[in-house]
Amino acid sequence: MTSRRKFIRTAAAASAGLSILPSFNVLSKSPNAQLRIGFIGVGFRGQGHLSRALERNDIEVVAICDIQQRMMDMALTRVRKSGKSRPKVILEGPYGYKKLLDNKDIDAVIISTPWEWHARMCLDAMNAGKYVGCEVNTGATIEECWELVRTSERTGMPMMMLENVCYRRDVMAVLNMVRQNIFGELIHLQGGYQHDLRGVKFNDGKDPLGPGAEFGEKAFSEAQWRTQHSVHRNGDLYPSHGIGPIAMMLNINRGNRFTRLSSYATKARGLHNYVVKTGGENHPNAKVNFKLGDVVTTMIQTSNEETVLLQHDTNLPRPYSLGFRVQGTNGIWMDVNKSIYIEGQGKEHGEWEDAKPWLEKYDHPLWKKYASDAAGAGHGGMDWFVFNAFVEAAKQRVQTPQDVYDAVTWSAISPLSEASIANGGAAMEFPDFTSGKWMYRKNDFAISDSY
Amino acid sequence: MTSRRKFIRTAAAASAGLSILPSFNVLSKSPNAQLRIGFIGVGFRGQGHLSRALERNDIEVVAICDIQQRMMDMALTRVRKSGKSRPKVILEGPYGYKKLLDNKDIDAVIISTPWEWHARMCLDAMNAGKYVGCEVNTGATIEECWELVRTSERTGMPMMMLENVCYRRDVMAVLNMVRQNIFGELIHLQGGYQHDLRGVKFNDGKDPLGPGAEFGEKAFSEAQWRTQHSVHRNGDLYPSHGIGPIAMMLNINRGNRFTRLSSYATKARGLHNYVVKTGGENHPNAKVNFKLGDVVTTMIQTSNEETVLLQHDTNLPRPYSLGFRVQGTNGIWMDVNKSIYIEGQGKEHGEWEDAKPWLEKYDHPLWKKYASDAAGAGHGGMDWFVFNAFVEAAKQRVQTPQDVYDAVTWSAISPLSEASIANGGAAMEFPDFTSGKWMYRKNDFAISDSY
Repeated sequence: MTSRRKFIRTAAAASAGLSILPSFNVLSKSPNAQLRIGFIGVGFRGQGHLSRALERNDIEVVAICDIQQRMMDMALTRVRKSGKSRPKVILEGPYGYKKLLDNKDIDAVIISTPWEWHARMCLDAMNAGKYVGCEVNTGATIEECWELVRTSERTGMPMMMLENVCYRRDVMAVLNMVRQNIFGELIHLQGGYQHDLRGVKFNDGKDPLGPGAEFGEKAFSEAQWRTQHSVHRNGDLYPSHGIGPIAMMLNINRGNRFTRLSSYATKARGLHNYVVKTGGENHPNAKVNFKLGDVVTTMIQTSNEETVLLQHDTNLPRPYSLGFRVQGTNGIWMDVNKSIYIEGQGKEHGEWEDAKPWLEKYDHPLWKKYASDAAGAGHGGMDWFVFNAFVEAAKQRVQTPQDVYDAVTWSAISPLSEASIANGGAAMEFPDFTSGKWMYRKNDFAISDSY
Repeated sequence: MTSRRKFIRTAAAASAGLSILPSFNVLSKSPNAQLRIGFIGVGFRGQGHLSRALERNDIEVVAICDIQQRMMDMALTRVRKSGKSRPKVILEGPYGYKKLLDNKDIDAVIISTPWEWHARMCLDAMNAGKYVGCEVNTGATIEECWELVRTSERTGMPMMMLENVCYRRDVMAVLNMVRQNIFGELIHLQGGYQHDLRGVKFNDGKDPLGPGAEFGEKAFSEAQWRTQHSVHRNGDLYPSHGIGPIAMMLNINRGNRFTRLSSYATKARGLHNYVVKTGGENHPNAKVNFKLGDVVTTMIQTSNEETVLLQHDTNLPRPYSLGFRVQGTNGIWMDVNKSIYIEGQGKEHGEWEDAKPWLEKYDHPLWKKYASDAAGAGHGGMDWFVFNAFVEAAKQRVQTPQDVYDAVTWSAISPLSEASIANGGAAMEFPDFTSGKWMYRKNDFAISDSY
């Protein structure tokens, strides 16, 4: 059977629901067996996933790979404290991960590395026959996105971008409400990433969130690499927390798709001001020309004629807000004011109502079932859910609930928005990464309480 | 002296502040004299302005013009109740307003007619030497906008679009804060018109806000004409309530200008659904194909590299919200959650704070002075301020605080957004209606407590 035919069977099975993939070569164990995982990148984010793995009895941590002794030591401390057996340790520079992939005992990998390493690592992992769970975002260029799709199709290996906000409790309750037609026909949705990251993009080289004006080699943790993207790129660099949940509500790649987008960016002031404030006017980084506009706004059109508004706002002092808005023919929910209005069901005509009772009433079955398991995991518990979903899909040898088409569709917003801004706000056509399958696929994300 | 030279002197004087215009032919009285006003259009909106005029002792209502006996009767009842002398009544069809303009005793006109009549009436009024106060919006096409500018420049007659939200109490407090640098350098602003107008666009032909599925000839008041724009046009049809205040904060046409915009529109569902709900599936209007997308989103770029986001959302059930957001390098204010965050001045790092104490602390001098006068006037008092500003400028024979450049700049968003949507979200260049004067003009809007 050719690879292509294999994938067609796979895709057809997946489109019918959480069906078993027919043709994995690597995974031959029965469902509910142990999943053997390798971790590529155990910085703070990777360590979070590692902790989720160590607290489960259905996972064996086979190997860990990183490029920094300090991070590796922290990861191994977590292993030691868990009482689990010590995994194979690979500390052999940026391409050491290939040695991890050579390990035939590994079923799946979790990739938590700098963005620019995601695509090549995902490609190598799928080619090595591993299930891939990769941190946001995957694919910094449209070409990379296509290569990820074609590689997943050719190898039959699922690739899941670990977008945790799809599992946020209020977001899942609203998804539940969308599916129960509370909002009527969806019309307009909003989301984004509005998070003051100045303390993440700069530190003192010691404390990851410590005060300081350093980035790159003199910094520690994310500031070592993430800030480079603010120096060199101008666009929505981090779309998935906003667009993931929205895409699931709009059935993107499942009867609907994004057709085009336009992005506008403001001037860049926040990062420079922060360097001056924390490091002084004469700090070398005060001379850096940060390209990333402080606020980047993106409009997206769908084939079903909804619009989506995305905002990226990470360089200014502001309260955290993903800025969700879900609006349909019956009413509207917004998270910034924690309010809802559903016509004919509110207390007063045209008055906002506290969303809380609605969110509790429509609490998603997954949260009802697993809230206590998730308690204590990162980001209010949603990190538990996204990790669990990947693990359960990999154990059962089925397609992941967020698949390669989702990963690249959400990630492609970054390069498309950069292109739009560079071209004076021109509307950019959105690729159809499913090559037409979006017309036939069904939405099986979180349709039950299984994962 | 040629008209052109006259206007240059006028503009130079205006740019120096609230200086006296040097060369009006019509107005020869000293400041603080009576202002003689004619009203063109006395529907409900015109009647509101009429009431403001009747309660003042510095205004003589010389003539009233309308096309409907019912509205005229209501207007004359207001005159009678005020005890003021009966104005000349003109009820001679759509062009009866020209007879009003022929009246040499009229200094200024207030135009409150259907949108599509604004431009021609403003042009005729300026050519007749009248001060023009015109309801929003003015100019449905770019050509009309240019004609209004050139006519104001040629005749030397000011034209003020009566944008009342520029005078909303919280908006003026925030303007005050912007000018006192509370937000630092401005980066990104938002506003819009998010108002469920279904009950305005349709009625039963008797009650202007009554239940019903009629528009056009069978309807009453705004539904007679406003709904036609939802049938035939797709764009941001009503930008000024959002953009007016934002433009003043950003010094648009005064050291800054809009350079381009892009608009996206959703499908149109709300109006059709409303017709079916109120008139049944078989109502003739259930067959109407409404072109106006339920939610229209517009991004605007400025020459000083800020961005502005505008939303137009009038066809769906939802709470009223103009959706203001003012964000700078120091912090952010939003009206939907009535909250603010200013770095280093909040109670907690990165937490929203109730905006109320800030709005009270920075209450604008105009509101401090006139709040009691404005009490009881429409829309929370702001209608008093916008009317007063026009009257005071006309009495003192100076440029109006919102001038012809503002009127057309704000109004031009409608045709530009229609063009962008019709061209698949293409970015549209924004005309410079000041022909370069924006680089030299100073912002003198509401700089004191005079008006």
